[in-house]
Amino acid sequence: MRFTDKLLNISRKNNTLLCIGLDPDPELMPGVDVLEFNKAIIEATSDLVCAYKPNLAFYEALGSEGLAILEKTVRYVPGDIPVIADAKRGDIGNTARAYARALFSIFGFDAATVNPYLGFDSIEPFINNQDKGVFILCRTSNPGATDFQNLCTNGVPLYEVVAQKAREWNIYGNIGLVVGATYPEELKRVRSICPEMPLLIPGIGAQGGDLAAAVRYGADAGGQKAIISVSRQILYASQDKDFARAARNTAREIRTQINDYRNNAR
Amino acid sequence: MRFTDKLLNISRKNNTLLCIGLDPDPELMPGVDVLEFNKAIIEATSDLVCAYKPNLAFYEALGSEGLAILEKTVRYVPGDIPVIADAKRGDIGNTARAYARALFSIFGFDAATVNPYLGFDSIEPFINNQDKGVFILCRTSNPGATDFQNLCTNGVPLYEVVAQKAREWNIYGNIGLVVGATYPEELKRVRSICPEMPLLIPGIGAQGGDLAAAVRYGADAGGQKAIISVSRQILYASQDKDFARAARNTAREIRTQINDYRNNAR
Repeated sequence: MRFTDKLLNISRKNNTLLCIGLDPDPELMPGVDVLEFNKAIIEATSDLVCAYKPNLAFYEALGSEGLAILEKTVRYVPGDIPVIADAKRGDIGNTARAYARALFSIFGFDAATVNPYLGFDSIEPFINNQDKGVFILCRTSNPGATDFQNLCTNGVPLYEVVAQKAREWNIYGNIGLVVGATYPEELKRVRSICPEMPLLIPGIGAQGGDLAAAVRYGADAGGQKAIISVSRQILYASQDKDFARAARNTAREIRTQINDYRNNAR
Repeated sequence: MRFTDKLLNISRKNNTLLCIGLDPDPELMPGVDVLEFNKAIIEATSDLVCAYKPNLAFYEALGSEGLAILEKTVRYVPGDIPVIADAKRGDIGNTARAYARALFSIFGFDAATVNPYLGFDSIEPFINNQDKGVFILCRTSNPGATDFQNLCTNGVPLYEVVAQKAREWNIYGNIGLVVGATYPEELKRVRSICPEMPLLIPGIGAQGGDLAAAVRYGADAGGQKAIISVSRQILYASQDKDFARAARNTAREIRTQINDYRNNAR
C-alpha cells in the first residue's frame, strides 16, 4: 500500500493527526529497558496515533545495540500504523541508495525524513521506493533554521524554493515536507505552495510550537495530511512506573485538542 | 589531542594527504566478511593515509550488525590515524547532542561530517567537543549540488555563505569544510574564504574529480590540511583475493600523484 493511503486510512480510523516521536532518552526515562519502554508506549497509544516517528539519533547514541532495539521497535508497531524514520539523511546518489535501502528494506520503515542540501540526486533513491513516503526538510522547528533557510534568492526564501522543488520532483506522489510548528507563517506559506502534500510538523510541546496554528495552517483542505509530531511531552509525561498510562492520557488530550481545532477550522 | 594536530602529525609522518573512504559494498566486495575486509584494507594502507572515513550509510545498510562492524572497525584503526564519521548529520539541538554523543563518545570517531541546513544550533553540539573535528558540508561533489548550494543571496552563492558562517562559528578552531573535487573553481573560492581550515575533499576516482586541481586549490599555503578522500577506486581495485594488495598499490599511486602535485605547486 502507498504511504499516503496507509496514513489516511489510520488517520481516519483513529480520528487523529497525532504522531508520537519515539525518542528514548535514558536521562528522562523511568528505570526501564528501552525496548520495553517503547513497547509500553506503543501499546498504550496505538489507537490514538496516525504514525510513530523514531528519531535515529537516540538509538545511535546507544551504539549498535540501540540500532537492534530500533529494528525490534519498528517490527512491534501494528502493521496498519506507518513508522517514519526521522533520519534527516542526505548524501550523494550512490550513498543515498545505501541509506534508502537501510531505512526502507532493512529497518522496514514506511517513510523517512531527508535533508535537501545535496539536491535531487540525494532524494531520488528515496522517492524511487514508490510505496514509501519521503519527507524533505523544508522549514525546521529550531532557532538556527533562519541561518540558511530564510536566505532569499530573487525575493524567495530558500525553504520556499525547497517546497517548489519538492512539488516539481513529486512525480510518484510520495513526497512530503517537514515544517516546524514553531513558525506558523512559514507553515501557512508552505501549505499554500503544496496544498496536497503530507506535512510532518514537529515542534509542539517541549519546543513551544503553536498547536492551533499547526492544525489551522498544516492540515489540507479536507482537514487531513498534517502529521503533528510530539515526543518528550508524551513520552515523559511521567517519569515513574505509570509512564505508559500518563503518556496515553497526554496523547489523548493532545488528540482531542487537535480535533477541536480541526472542527473549528471548518 | 586536538583533531587538527592529530591530522597534521600523521599527515607529515606518512607524507600524505590521502584519506581512504571505508565504504563496504557487498555487491563490489570479494567474498569476504565485511569486518575482515576493513581490517585487511587498514592493515594494507595505514602507512599511506592521513585518515580513514567510513560512510555510515554502508554500515546501516547491513542493519544493526553493520553498526557493530563499524564499532569494531573504528577501534581497529591505529590510534595515531584520525577516523572521520561520514555521517552528514543535521538535527535540532536536543537531537544533535544525541548524534554527537553517538559519533564521538559511543562509536569513538575523531571527527564527523555535518549538514548545515538546520543552522548553528544543529552544529554547536558537535563543535562543543573541542578535541573533535567537525566538517560542515559546503559544496558537495554530486550533480544535484547546484540545486540549492549555488542559489545566490545578494550575489553570494549559498555554499559561500556556509563557508563564511563556518569561519564565524569556528571559535574552538575545530571546524572544517567538505568541498567536492568535482568543482575546482568552487574549491578555490572556499579555500580563499577559509585559508586555514582543513578541507575534506571527496569526488576523486569513481566520481571523476580532478586530482591536480584538488591538490592545487585544496591544500593550504603550507601544502597541508587537504584531506583527499578516495573510496571505490582503492577498495575495489581488485575484486579477487588479492584485494588488499591491489588497494595498497592504488593507494600508493594516488599518494605519489598527490605529492607530485604538491611539489609542483611550490
